[in-house]
Amino acid sequence: MTDQPIATAALVQQEAASLAVSLAPVYQDLHANPELSFAEHRTAALVADRITGLGYGVATGIGGTGVVGVLENGEGPTVLLRADMDGLPVLEETGLDYASVARGVDPEGNDVPVMHACGHDVHVTCLLGAAELLAARRDTWSGTLVVLFQPAEEAGGGAQAMVDDDLYARVPKPDIVFGQHVGPLPAGVVGTHAGPSFAATDAYRVTFHGRGGHGSRPQSTIDPIVMAASAVVRLQSIVSREVAGTDTAVLTVGTMHAGTKNNIIPDTAQIGVNIRSYEPHVRDRVVGSMERIIRAEAAASGAEREPAIEHTEAFPVLVNDPAATGAVTAVFADAFGANRVVDPGLVTGSEDVGMLATAADAPIVYWILGGADPQAFAAAYASGRMEQDLPGNHSSKFAPLIHPTLDTGIAALSLAALSRLSGTAATA
Amino acid sequence: MTDQPIATAALVQQEAASLAVSLAPVYQDLHANPELSFAEHRTAALVADRITGLGYGVATGIGGTGVVGVLENGEGPTVLLRADMDGLPVLEETGLDYASVARGVDPEGNDVPVMHACGHDVHVTCLLGAAELLAARRDTWSGTLVVLFQPAEEAGGGAQAMVDDDLYARVPKPDIVFGQHVGPLPAGVVGTHAGPSFAATDAYRVTFHGRGGHGSRPQSTIDPIVMAASAVVRLQSIVSREVAGTDTAVLTVGTMHAGTKNNIIPDTAQIGVNIRSYEPHVRDRVVGSMERIIRAEAAASGAEREPAIEHTEAFPVLVNDPAATGAVTAVFADAFGANRVVDPGLVTGSEDVGMLATAADAPIVYWILGGADPQAFAAAYASGRMEQDLPGNHSSKFAPLIHPTLDTGIAALSLAALSRLSGTAATA
Amino acid sequence: MTDQPIATAALVQQEAASLAVSLAPVYQDLHANPELSFAEHRTAALVADRITGLGYGVATGIGGTGVVGVLENGEGPTVLLRADMDGLPVLEETGLDYASVARGVDPEGNDVPVMHACGHDVHVTCLLGAAELLAARRDTWSGTLVVLFQPAEEAGGGAQAMVDDDLYARVPKPDIVFGQHVGPLPAGVVGTHAGPSFAATDAYRVTFHGRGGHGSRPQSTIDPIVMAASAVVRLQSIVSREVAGTDTAVLTVGTMHAGTKNNIIPDTAQIGVNIRSYEPHVRDRVVGSMERIIRAEAAASGAEREPAIEHTEAFPVLVNDPAATGAVTAVFADAFGANRVVDPGLVTGSEDVGMLATAADAPIVYWILGGADPQAFAAAYASGRMEQDLPGNHSSKFAPLIHPTLDTGIAALSLAALSRLSGTAATA
Amino acid sequence: MTDQPIATAALVQQEAASLAVSLAPVYQDLHANPELSFAEHRTAALVADRITGLGYGVATGIGGTGVVGVLENGEGPTVLLRADMDGLPVLEETGLDYASVARGVDPEGNDVPVMHACGHDVHVTCLLGAAELLAARRDTWSGTLVVLFQPAEEAGGGAQAMVDDDLYARVPKPDIVFGQHVGPLPAGVVGTHAGPSFAATDAYRVTFHGRGGHGSRPQSTIDPIVMAASAVVRLQSIVSREVAGTDTAVLTVGTMHAGTKNNIIPDTAQIGVNIRSYEPHVRDRVVGSMERIIRAEAAASGAEREPAIEHTEAFPVLVNDPAATGAVTAVFADAFGANRVVDPGLVTGSEDVGMLATAADAPIVYWILGGADPQAFAAAYASGRMEQDLPGNHSSKFAPLIHPTLDTGIAALSLAALSRLSGTAATA
Repeated sequence: MTDQPIATAALVQQEAASLAVSLAPVYQDLHANPELSFAEHRTAALVADRITGLGYGVATGIGGTGVVGVLENGEGPTVLLRADMDGLPVLEETGLDYASVARGVDPEGNDVPVMHACGHDVHVTCLLGAAELLAARRDTWSGTLVVLFQPAEEAGGGAQAMVDDDLYARVPKPDIVFGQHVGPLPAGVVGTHAGPSFAATDAYRVTFHGRGGHGSRPQSTIDPIVMAASAVVRLQSIVSREVAGTDTAVLTVGTMHAGTKNNIIPDTAQIGVNIRSYEPHVRDRVVGSMERIIRAEAAASGAEREPAIEHTEAFPVLVNDPAATGAVTAVFADAFGANRVVDPGLVTGSEDVGMLATAADAPIVYWILGGADPQAFAAAYASGRMEQDLPGNHSSKFAPLIHPTLDTGIAALSLAALSRLSGTAATA
Repeated sequence: MTDQPIATAALVQQEAASLAVSLAPVYQDLHANPELSFAEHRTAALVADRITGLGYGVATGIGGTGVVGVLENGEGPTVLLRADMDGLPVLEETGLDYASVARGVDPEGNDVPVMHACGHDVHVTCLLGAAELLAARRDTWSGTLVVLFQPAEEAGGGAQAMVDDDLYARVPKPDIVFGQHVGPLPAGVVGTHAGPSFAATDAYRVTFHGRGGHGSRPQSTIDPIVMAASAVVRLQSIVSREVAGTDTAVLTVGTMHAGTKNNIIPDTAQIGVNIRSYEPHVRDRVVGSMERIIRAEAAASGAEREPAIEHTEAFPVLVNDPAATGAVTAVFADAFGANRVVDPGLVTGSEDVGMLATAADAPIVYWILGGADPQAFAAAYASGRMEQDLPGNHSSKFAPLIHPTLDTGIAALSLAALSRLSGTAATA
Repeated sequence: MTDQPIATAALVQQEAASLAVSLAPVYQDLHANPELSFAEHRTAALVADRITGLGYGVATGIGGTGVVGVLENGEGPTVLLRADMDGLPVLEETGLDYASVARGVDPEGNDVPVMHACGHDVHVTCLLGAAELLAARRDTWSGTLVVLFQPAEEAGGGAQAMVDDDLYARVPKPDIVFGQHVGPLPAGVVGTHAGPSFAATDAYRVTFHGRGGHGSRPQSTIDPIVMAASAVVRLQSIVSREVAGTDTAVLTVGTMHAGTKNNIIPDTAQIGVNIRSYEPHVRDRVVGSMERIIRAEAAASGAEREPAIEHTEAFPVLVNDPAATGAVTAVFADAFGANRVVDPGLVTGSEDVGMLATAADAPIVYWILGGADPQAFAAAYASGRMEQDLPGNHSSKFAPLIHPTLDTGIAALSLAALSRLSGTAATA
Repeated sequence: MTDQPIATAALVQQEAASLAVSLAPVYQDLHANPELSFAEHRTAALVADRITGLGYGVATGIGGTGVVGVLENGEGPTVLLRADMDGLPVLEETGLDYASVARGVDPEGNDVPVMHACGHDVHVTCLLGAAELLAARRDTWSGTLVVLFQPAEEAGGGAQAMVDDDLYARVPKPDIVFGQHVGPLPAGVVGTHAGPSFAATDAYRVTFHGRGGHGSRPQSTIDPIVMAASAVVRLQSIVSREVAGTDTAVLTVGTMHAGTKNNIIPDTAQIGVNIRSYEPHVRDRVVGSMERIIRAEAAASGAEREPAIEHTEAFPVLVNDPAATGAVTAVFADAFGANRVVDPGLVTGSEDVGMLATAADAPIVYWILGGADPQAFAAAYASGRMEQDLPGNHSSKFAPLIHPTLDTGIAALSLAALSRLSGTAATA
């Protein structure tokens, strides 16, 4: 290691901290104005406006609401930094000054509350910060920088939509993709893990068909609520009985909707199922067993019509490139100190960012950015109730600490980009 | 029996048949324009307009949207005929020309489809017919006729709301109350039963409190969907294990709602429970066991907060006065022939019409008006699949035959009223 | 009514009371030595010995362990009085001095405790008493008296086994059959009900086939315990959802057995199902739904082999002859007083005694004999917890009061018999 | 590596193969005569007799039926080789010529079938072989060899019982403990894993208290079968909802027993629960949730008495000493070739052998000995149905291949022992 990169790392962190302060109001504004998947119009306009002002060439409307900025800065590799922009249909209960009261329309046409319950507002803000930092310091590197703001990560269609919308015919194809996700590590800490890191997701919408009628005469009906409830209960036995203790799978029923009035047995009931896995044989068994159980529980109720099972979402496993991950981990350890860089192991969450790398045949490194209040984290850890006491992603109380989360996130993106780009500058 | 009433009965039926024809378009219009409980504005305006035109003194807005017409016609008893006006949040699937495509807003503020899935449009039309018939033939009777159009029978609050809104300070207190409900008997047939006839209803809104989070990390949440589904399944054991086979109780979970997205475990899940019973000791045990099971299933999930159990509806048992029922049954048998008058036994449905009688300290006779296509009825009966094959009340395919249902219903109301009123006329 | 029968009734009751005292030790001996179905060897020997001593012609070993005594006493009708002899595999917990500590071998070959938990010891003792009373007073009647001690009522095969073993080729065919069952009425009271009275029973042995393996590797097994438990839970929805509230059916899973060790997942699980009903359409639906649910729950587990469903027991509905029941009820009311004769309504228990009448094409009257401590009964009734507080038939704490239960039971059998036989004597 | 140990390894394998042939009849005899935990009298007598004949000093009856042989052979370390002796209550279905038809009495006093369904007969035979090989070649090593035959591994009490019975006051305390378990690897292969390797086990006997009664009157009972079945179903949600996908826990209900007759609702139901885990925080949560769910399901049924939860078994995690495991792995790879030595990862099975090491404060190395037909293994692997197609430990079809399983197992024990002992001889 020469002195120069060390100096760079310290300087980058200093500038990142400064940007974190200036961008905090932007973060709070984004947080207060979340938008659902593919409806990130205000967010997209905001980021397009800002990165245009920074001198990036900007393409908008890619894959719906996607925005990409390109900064060509001489010879060298192309580095893509990615943030996702969408919020979730969650009613915010953080009590923050800048809490969201926004509403949106979900895919079924319902009016729902919206919240940045997964921290994509942090991702956007950090990428705006890194875009500004790297543009300001373009004298220290050479190559092409692509900053990509993706729609609809939550539903899993955003990255694919951008790729399908000729992304890499419209912006340079990257040599490497970097990104980050805020999560339940202490703010100031980053987590890197080589190899399979984020789970594959498969989501299903299941409609059980019963036969409605008066609530007082169930014998003349086929009750779809008892049918669906029995299926939800029975689905628990897949993970408990059909997946080896040493394998990993999660099956969650996240929605259940049936009926309009307590004295009417409805015709149908609908559930939304989400499955996480890392290995094809585990995925196949869980999906197959889900289908088997759903059909059998409908049969147990005497359903006259098979339940409809629609495959609504599919994310692949995200595999961090081992070599590139090792390199980034070393950069982070040098910059932040080894005690601020951890290996979080497998994450059961899913991410579609890998599609942006796969479509470019490029490696990816995607890390966890700590967002938790270190004291709350330490207290939860000490109590042995980490998962009960610390509101996690998708919780209505999820509230990342602004500092040093933004500071670290801006620095991490900048340092990762520079690790690829500044070498060229150095040799230039 | 003298000749005169027989002649009257034949004449009444003939006039009722004629009115059934002239009112069929009114029925179809009502069917195509159903309104939810306490929102029967169009219906109330329509009936107020028509009975005003018939010469009734009309009071509107009683208990919200209730309408009452009074025809004072000399000395004699006061007879109250009642119809209920509200539709249900059901998406009509009858395929009728005059099927409803109406929408409404339910008590939770959701936009929902609306259908006359319980035949209150038949009740309103028949009462309009009887009001017209009895007004036209006021020379044959003496006394006071009250025709009452009630809101919100489905939710159980309409009769009480009218009583609480000083009903009997505004219109004469009846000496007897008559009414009818269209149901799964062949059209042309009426069903009378003395004593306890319609079940008591108790309805509950139950909110299970879990703790939300990311669908991939259930260990950091308390899953309210598994909690609620387990409760729904476990509630089945009340009727199967805690009610004697020879006692009667029905417990239906008619609604179940939780979650907005398959990868978010929500904070809460809500179910709507409806309980029917005829005897206090059975009701008390079922309600007690429901509360016990709901609390225990929340405890099984490790809920940190007790589920909320709100008592949203309560109907008493409807008890037909034995003497008055015997008299009406005899009138019907004389008029329609004994083979068109049956005893349907206990009905597990509920009715709040009894409150109108109780508040007046008057007896009540409330009968079933057949609405089923006799051939479909006979086929379903012969196949032993009556309850599976004949779409019943509250079904999205509930479609009473217009004739002779209206004919019989208009005649039945008129004959019952005349049985009390014409005696006085005869003696006058 | 003439004086004579009144005198007779009073005398009969006086003698019955005397016999109840002398037979109390026999009752206690029977209670302390219960035997399982078709294994009533000691009981059969005891009754054969006693009725031989009374002058009856005795046939033994009919249908296994059945014993019949015949007393021919001139011209006149043949009256059959019946008692059943078998105990149950229940561990007695009454704390009585004469409590059973007996053991037996059940049909599966297991060593089990045995108890007279259904009061067949009362039935045997009362019939011994009536046999003695009627033999002693043979001067007051004319005809043929048959006293029949049946094996295996509990399993439902005893009456059929006797009929199949040429019962009516070996003893005179009766003109009427009388019998009684001790139950939860106050001692001293009898209950008669005309028409369908005791439910039909169908029993099933269900074997679920999974695939065993190590408890730590469920993924390599098909867990039959989760399969069977899910089926037991799901079966509750038959009565709760598929039987009208106003119809009667009971489905009980009375046994569940699987596995030998907590760390071995077994290959199979077995449950015993018992179904009660009064009407064929209800029975057929419940049985059909049971089979459907059992197959579906096996399918939900991915079972590679269909569950085996064996129909192990079938009792028909017991229908008391209306005319004969009316006559017996009048006799009892005259003798005991009207307040000691009640109508218990439908009983969900089953009885195979009806087969003895059906095979002879004779009417039957079968009544309930009160056995409960009147004070305990009254307290339970007053508390509204009758069914919780009063240990019923098949309970390990079932303990009929010796007096006046035996007194009333001996008198009732004798009076019923005399009501048919003494008329002939009177005219002789 | 010098030539000498290589020559030794080849020679040891040659002699082990020869012993595998001569001991095959002993293996088949043991397999045909399995004995339950703590009842291994015949087995213990057989091994005591054989090792006495080999010149070992023999102690019997340690911890019940435990047998230990000691061969003191000069200066040097003490090495303990261990085999467990007990069979399982499984009905053998292998179809082998030497299949077991043995019966035993389980801890509840039931007569049950017995089978060596976990391969302890392999363990005993291999240890007899190694004992013979090492005694015959005592010129090549120096030190003390302890061969220990343990009772009751299945129930988890055997190792503790031997330790508690002053094991190490009666035989030399070892410097290292070796042992092996036959399992689902191809015969000829061994599997070693450093660190935590076999799961902790906690087993519970749970008695649900209901209130019995007649099957036709459930309303007067508290049905313990519905209670227990509901608990079994609900327990599935612990692993599915409360354990992170990336953590490991298995909860199996291996036994369920209730009732004696389908028409009697029993007083109680009993289940046997087995829990596997590797980490204290996971274990604590699973155990806590199990207790919570069992209590809540009893409460849901309205139980008047808390269920009894007895902790019947507790095995700690088995942790293979990393350094010693590395050394043994190298010895195996040298002797068998690297392709016959694999790392099987975590095993969810449990083992109490670790207690023998812990009590001596010695390291342990415990490996998996392949027993599967390599062709069947390969076919199962290729089909992706390994766990479904290959009968595993505790299955009624578990049938290790005799050769080369015994050959490899005798060689592995001998080589591991010699790796510690022969060094001393070499230096002698």
